[in-house]
Amino acid sequence: MHPADVPLQDALDALADPVRRTIVRELAATPDWTRACGTFDLPVTKATRSHHFAVLRGAGLIEQRDEGPRRLNRLRRAEFDARFPGLLALVLAEPAGTAPAEPASDPGDGASADSGNGD
Amino acid sequence: MHPADVPLQDALDALADPVRRTIVRELAATPDWTRACGTFDLPVTKATRSHHFAVLRGAGLIEQRDEGPRRLNRLRRAEFDARFPGLLALVLAEPAGTAPAEPASDPGDGASADSGNGD
Repeated sequence: MHPADVPLQDALDALADPVRRTIVRELAATPDWTRACGTFDLPVTKATRSHHFAVLRGAGLIEQRDEGPRRLNRLRRAEFDARFPGLLALVLAEPAGTAPAEPASDPGDGASADSGNGD
Repeated sequence: MHPADVPLQDALDALADPVRRTIVRELAATPDWTRACGTFDLPVTKATRSHHFAVLRGAGLIEQRDEGPRRLNRLRRAEFDARFPGLLALVLAEPAGTAPAEPASDPGDGASADSGNGD
C-alpha cells in the first residue's frame, strides 16, 4: 500500500501498537533494506510478528522485499511524511521503552480517563 | 489530564477511534465552552458517549466544565499541539464522513494488511 492511499484510520491503528512503533523506530535507525523481519527482538510469537509487519505494510509505513530466505524492510519515511506530516516524527521522538512491551487488552481506554473532570 | 503529561500511546489510542475524531473535529469548528456533550449527533449509546468524552479528557484533548445540567467542552488545541505537533492537524484535515460511523471490531488490522508484499 502506498502511503498516499492510506486512510488516517489505518495509519493511527498501525501506530497505536507499541510493538509496531518499536519496529518503526528500529528501522529508522538503520539503512534501508538491511533489517530482516527475524532480526527484531520482539516479545511476541512468530505469527504475531508477521501480523505486525503486515499491518505496517498495509498502512504504507514499510516496504518489503525477499532476498533468499530473508524478508528485508525499508521504512517509507519520506512518502509517509508527505501523507501524514508530523506523525512519524512523534513516533521517532518517543523514547524507547516508554511504551509497554505488550499492548494491554484495552490499551489506553479508561486507564487515564477517570482521573477527574475538567482536567 | 494536561497534554504535557500524556504519553503518545494514550494520544494515539484516543484518536484511533472515528467517533472521537468526529467529536474533536466538531469542537474545533465551534467556540470554546459552547458545546455540551449531549449536543453531538453520535451513533452510540449514552454510556459509550460518556466513555468517549472521558477518553478524550484523559488524553488531554478536551477540558470540561459543568454548567447547570450541561457539561461543556473545550478542545485543548494549543496545548495538545505543543505536546504532539501535527497530530491534531491530521485529524482536523480528515474529511468528515470518511471514517466508518462505528469502529470495526478489529479496526484496521488485517483488512488492508494482506494486499501484497513489497507494496
